[in-house]
Amino acid sequence: MKVLFAAPARLWDAWAPALRAACPEMALCRDGDPAGFDALIYAPGYPEGGAALDFSPFTRARVVQSLWAGVERIVTNPTLTQPLCRMVDPGLAQGMAEYCTGWALRAHLGMDRYAQDGVWRNAVTPPLASARRVTVLGMGELGRAVAAALAGLGFRVTGWSHSGRAVPGIEVLAGPDLPQALARAEILVCLLPDTAETRDLLDAELLALLPAGATIINAGRGTLIDETALLAALDSGHIAHAVLDVFRQEPLPPDHPFWRHPGVTVTPHVSAETRPESAAAVAAENLRRAMRGEPLLYRVDRARGY
Amino acid sequence: MKVLFAAPARLWDAWAPALRAACPEMALCRDGDPAGFDALIYAPGYPEGGAALDFSPFTRARVVQSLWAGVERIVTNPTLTQPLCRMVDPGLAQGMAEYCTGWALRAHLGMDRYAQDGVWRNAVTPPLASARRVTVLGMGELGRAVAAALAGLGFRVTGWSHSGRAVPGIEVLAGPDLPQALARAEILVCLLPDTAETRDLLDAELLALLPAGATIINAGRGTLIDETALLAALDSGHIAHAVLDVFRQEPLPPDHPFWRHPGVTVTPHVSAETRPESAAAVAAENLRRAMRGEPLLYRVDRARGY
Repeated sequence: MKVLFAAPARLWDAWAPALRAACPEMALCRDGDPAGFDALIYAPGYPEGGAALDFSPFTRARVVQSLWAGVERIVTNPTLTQPLCRMVDPGLAQGMAEYCTGWALRAHLGMDRYAQDGVWRNAVTPPLASARRVTVLGMGELGRAVAAALAGLGFRVTGWSHSGRAVPGIEVLAGPDLPQALARAEILVCLLPDTAETRDLLDAELLALLPAGATIINAGRGTLIDETALLAALDSGHIAHAVLDVFRQEPLPPDHPFWRHPGVTVTPHVSAETRPESAAAVAAENLRRAMRGEPLLYRVDRARGY
Repeated sequence: MKVLFAAPARLWDAWAPALRAACPEMALCRDGDPAGFDALIYAPGYPEGGAALDFSPFTRARVVQSLWAGVERIVTNPTLTQPLCRMVDPGLAQGMAEYCTGWALRAHLGMDRYAQDGVWRNAVTPPLASARRVTVLGMGELGRAVAAALAGLGFRVTGWSHSGRAVPGIEVLAGPDLPQALARAEILVCLLPDTAETRDLLDAELLALLPAGATIINAGRGTLIDETALLAALDSGHIAHAVLDVFRQEPLPPDHPFWRHPGVTVTPHVSAETRPESAAAVAAENLRRAMRGEPLLYRVDRARGY
């Protein structure tokens, strides 16, 4: 099995050993005749230089395995006709659960209340997590991991997904119930992919449905939230704080108003890193399935976009 | 059953309704003939004015139920001969688990790395919690709740207690193994009571055993840590950060160096509040046991001091 590592060169040193260890029967190459490859392991930024990859010469490739969970920059490539699979890395879901739980607890406990100025501010006791309502938008692998971690600490968690598919132990609302899901979100965790349906979904009208003083944590995709509407809701105080890890343009430009707004915490897309050790095993399994003609894991539905 | 609410007057409005609801057969009073009371519900600061309460005229009292978990200001009262019980409030343990987990995640995720200055600092990925070692000193009700919450999120948790008594799912080291417990504490959570054995226990010698760059979270009692040694270890960088919720003098005086030190976060003794609703049920159960002559819950061992 001959596989092209179609990803930026800076990733090679971390990924090649992990991929080869997980799939010793594979010949992993950095270049070669496109018609000679059985599969591609792909990440945007390949080839270097800015042009999108032309997938059409890879006539023999049975699968394009994305290195990352988000595939919005791949599904739109008109030359891609091969089956595309997202990465679903168990380490990524765990990292996301830790990030979202940490920032949710920071908001819940009111950590930022305690300025280090010599003033003993002990008048306010936060409620217990059992009295704090958190809504998770997006109940895929990541959303379920985050919801489970928050529920495990005692938070009152509601999930929301397009399908409303049931998740053990978590109340999940479906598409049309988005207003109810938002109305109970003292803390809103956003883990939605970037699709035509989610783009600018959280506009002024929907943000107004959040309880006064809500906190937003966006660790999905930056396109979800109308930036102008978010800044206005922060200015009015209706939203107390936004922790943003994802942006329309990354790195976030130094002059973007999010950096300066006291109600915004910017983190540099660190909420979940795909980790080579755990992700390589997932890629290897999919490559083997492709060679045997078996159903692929985490295959992208082009119509839905994820 | 006649019970004296021997606690500061400011507590009456929050506690009296909860206590009466939990124990309707009790006559709860704010004053009266000491010899007429069957029990006391006690918190330091009663009587108002600074003098310690003289327990000797309460000749009929079968129990002194502390309103708080910490009893170091009560056990030292030489007039106290009645059985003394600590408060073990399930809401308090939950609140403590939330506080310690939140601050542990803040350190684990390196949240304070992200200055809001327009610089995209995404080079460092924190390890997963499964690669982060946390030690909890003190494995009583609070320590066990904290250890369970941290382990539930995936942290590698070690407990340490004087007895080393086993706790399901957590490795617990005993008294003489304190050096080993400290040596693996990338994050050290301190939940020890204030006793002769714990006072100044964490001195320069023991602090030096922590891994370089460790974070300390002290939510037990302020007397545990030698303050001069802690400041020196922070200045040298051996300890990266200390989150302190408890102090030798509270409120912490405005001119105390902890307020100004960039490696210290002061919180105003908010890590766990005893909550009237859940605590009143515990007090009521103990009052009934005292009246029936049954063994009391959470009775303080005067020799150990807790």
